[in-house]
Amino acid sequence: MNHPAPPAAPTGTRRPLPPALLDALCAAFGERVSTADAVRTHHGRDESPFDPQLPDAVVFAHSADDVRQVVALCALYGVPLIPYGAGSSLEGHLLAVRGGVSLDLSEMNRVLSINAEDLTVTVEPGITRKALNEALRDTGLFFPIDPGADASIGGMTATRASGTNAVRYGTMRENVLGLTAVLADGRVVKTGSRARKSSAGYDLTRLFVGSEGTLGVITEITLRLHPLPEAVSAATCTFPSMGDAVRTVIETIQIGVPIARVEFVDALAIRSINRHSNLTLAEAPTLFFEFHGTEAGVKEQAELVEALAGQNHGQGFEWATRPEDRSRLWAARHNAFFAMLQLKPGCRAVTTDVCVPISQLAACVEETETDLRASSLPCPIVGHVGDGNFHVAILIDPDRPEELEEAERINDRIVERALRMGGTCTGEHGVGLHKMRFLPKEHGDDAIDAMRAIKLALDPRNLMNPGKIFTC
Amino acid sequence: MNHPAPPAAPTGTRRPLPPALLDALCAAFGERVSTADAVRTHHGRDESPFDPQLPDAVVFAHSADDVRQVVALCALYGVPLIPYGAGSSLEGHLLAVRGGVSLDLSEMNRVLSINAEDLTVTVEPGITRKALNEALRDTGLFFPIDPGADASIGGMTATRASGTNAVRYGTMRENVLGLTAVLADGRVVKTGSRARKSSAGYDLTRLFVGSEGTLGVITEITLRLHPLPEAVSAATCTFPSMGDAVRTVIETIQIGVPIARVEFVDALAIRSINRHSNLTLAEAPTLFFEFHGTEAGVKEQAELVEALAGQNHGQGFEWATRPEDRSRLWAARHNAFFAMLQLKPGCRAVTTDVCVPISQLAACVEETETDLRASSLPCPIVGHVGDGNFHVAILIDPDRPEELEEAERINDRIVERALRMGGTCTGEHGVGLHKMRFLPKEHGDDAIDAMRAIKLALDPRNLMNPGKIFTC
Repeated sequence: MNHPAPPAAPTGTRRPLPPALLDALCAAFGERVSTADAVRTHHGRDESPFDPQLPDAVVFAHSADDVRQVVALCALYGVPLIPYGAGSSLEGHLLAVRGGVSLDLSEMNRVLSINAEDLTVTVEPGITRKALNEALRDTGLFFPIDPGADASIGGMTATRASGTNAVRYGTMRENVLGLTAVLADGRVVKTGSRARKSSAGYDLTRLFVGSEGTLGVITEITLRLHPLPEAVSAATCTFPSMGDAVRTVIETIQIGVPIARVEFVDALAIRSINRHSNLTLAEAPTLFFEFHGTEAGVKEQAELVEALAGQNHGQGFEWATRPEDRSRLWAARHNAFFAMLQLKPGCRAVTTDVCVPISQLAACVEETETDLRASSLPCPIVGHVGDGNFHVAILIDPDRPEELEEAERINDRIVERALRMGGTCTGEHGVGLHKMRFLPKEHGDDAIDAMRAIKLALDPRNLMNPGKIFTC
Repeated sequence: MNHPAPPAAPTGTRRPLPPALLDALCAAFGERVSTADAVRTHHGRDESPFDPQLPDAVVFAHSADDVRQVVALCALYGVPLIPYGAGSSLEGHLLAVRGGVSLDLSEMNRVLSINAEDLTVTVEPGITRKALNEALRDTGLFFPIDPGADASIGGMTATRASGTNAVRYGTMRENVLGLTAVLADGRVVKTGSRARKSSAGYDLTRLFVGSEGTLGVITEITLRLHPLPEAVSAATCTFPSMGDAVRTVIETIQIGVPIARVEFVDALAIRSINRHSNLTLAEAPTLFFEFHGTEAGVKEQAELVEALAGQNHGQGFEWATRPEDRSRLWAARHNAFFAMLQLKPGCRAVTTDVCVPISQLAACVEETETDLRASSLPCPIVGHVGDGNFHVAILIDPDRPEELEEAERINDRIVERALRMGGTCTGEHGVGLHKMRFLPKEHGDDAIDAMRAIKLALDPRNLMNPGKIFTC
């Protein structure tokens, strides 16, 4: 059971694909153009709860030249174009709400150059983060951003993705050094450079990071890499309350422990893990820590955090440096999503994505927990607590529309709460179709107008992934 | 001896200030409006080598409401407006090339809120970085960005400033979480939030960071703070060549040492320091290191770096943890600028600001040194080597125009070289008037057109600091 795109994403302006455009695409790309139902359906949906909205055609690009050709043809015929990477977006980013062409970039997946001395790599947009790290294996470097899914780097750039490592390594905002994009009118904009910093004009790089395909098609990305840590250690600890857990994290950050990951898992999620993996973990709010550094450094970090956890009523602090012991400690977190789904057989999860100042996190989660207790739906919580970002997995029966509506009401209240506390409606998933209605409240109408003015300055006919982030 | 603004900054469109505007400003702000020559001259120049270009009037703002009023009046009369902070910009950013009103924000210098748990502070734009750190003294936190001058936070935001700490703590790009700006038409845009990350729409924050006053007047800034390190240690080491020094830094970064500062000073600059401070430092390429961390951590960092320096022919590695010993080691670097000026009595320094990928830094500096040997001007070099950013202080006799011309020729060649090596014409000073001519070569005409389109979308009449970054 999916549900239709919200009214904020009008589909009324959908027009049939001009036959001449299809002819031109077929002439240029042959078998790399498809209008088959299965292919269009695959490209008309993502991991969001929305019903698919199909593009009229799909083109598989192999090069930046291909992209320029497709963009030029879409411009010529005034047809929308939606870049497609791995299809793992979560908020309806890929849905062809106004029809048009889906431009599949997954076969543009080459590593163009690795510059180990500069800690940079330049890639095509279709490469996935796992494939990238595989390509980096012998360099002693890695690309840390890990949103969970094996997303494409282009998609991660377009949604400003982050994940569990962001507390230490930043998000795509900090890790994209430059990119090349084809604008709606076919001009090619090259932003940034391989220099680590620059004050040379407007930050077009950061403008494209998080623009969700609405400003142009990204054809090349230069990323910052990081040295693989000499040593990695992990720890877990349970707490009597969310407040104690968050207090531990705040103090950890305040004393300058360069923690690499710190994840919160609530009691319900732990219960699901116990059932799923036949474990007997204490069913209490739990923090999972990961430390990166030298052998001595990770030991020192773990000791500092253990002391802080103890002062905040943490219990059962356990830490490990051997890979197999780390895996054991983190297994619960790694399996949390699938374990949670088994709390309700046959369910699917609607996940929320707010992010608040960390000082507000305990209050935000605790108010949310109170709210969730009034719902009949199971709602385990996991969070990237060092960033103030948490996800509620609202488990719904896909055959019961009223449960989806209930999930949406819960999500609405979580977003309202986060905004009231100085936070954002989306920490890392992006706006897509699903968060559009919250944007004016978060930023104010003037800021949305400014975004819209920028969009129309670069794409006056609104051809690039139209109907996403805001309406034009 | 200064020199006129380059032709890229046309002054021909300068019109007299409408008397009705001056009347309205005086009615609203009384004695906080000035047309006195001394005040206008003070606001018509910066630390660049350009001749002053005076605004027609100066208004001293005390509040965001004042800013909105002045912007509205300038909009009403179609008159340019230039935000003014501490006057420490280096590339002509503040010059009123088309006349208009200089809006002095230096008295909008309050700390609006400190959120120690979130490691954030919200300030007005006129506060300087030193005053900010003074206000943070009892919090255990600090704001690390240090461009040398005691610049205003608004100005540092507008130029995307950085400095010696950027290798560890990032630049203004990474440390501005959000801001409020008044656009040319009086609309107020609030960007970002106090959440550490967000994927909610276009990154307007990063668009304003580095926009040099051309998109609007920044009235409020939320910054990221950092915990004061438990321990700080410093070290110095000399090297037979720039290549050896840079190799040491590359390896330091590659093994993941979280170095806080690493500064390069060339043999000529060391000679100037020896003369200035009556020291006998080895007149060789020298690195100055600073380490932040725990007591054990900084010791380990220094030992790792010492080993790497030794492998790269470093000599005389010396490190210190006591404040007085650290000061002694860093004195040479701290005094470098004034010491260098004494290489040529009565001179002034024209400083360059390129930044290249660190793998290119040794080659860039060495080619530059070869080039400089053909010049009669003394040209000591210092650099933020961890970022690939270096400054040549070209020492000229202010009474000899041919020396300024020679300095400009040297600068041009340094920029060409940096661009050829994948770098940028300005690592941290900004574009202002001085780097405008290099921007198309660095970014390409299409990217400059995109910047111009964004500028005109937000400021269609080109009233906000016109004639900077690019011409409209």
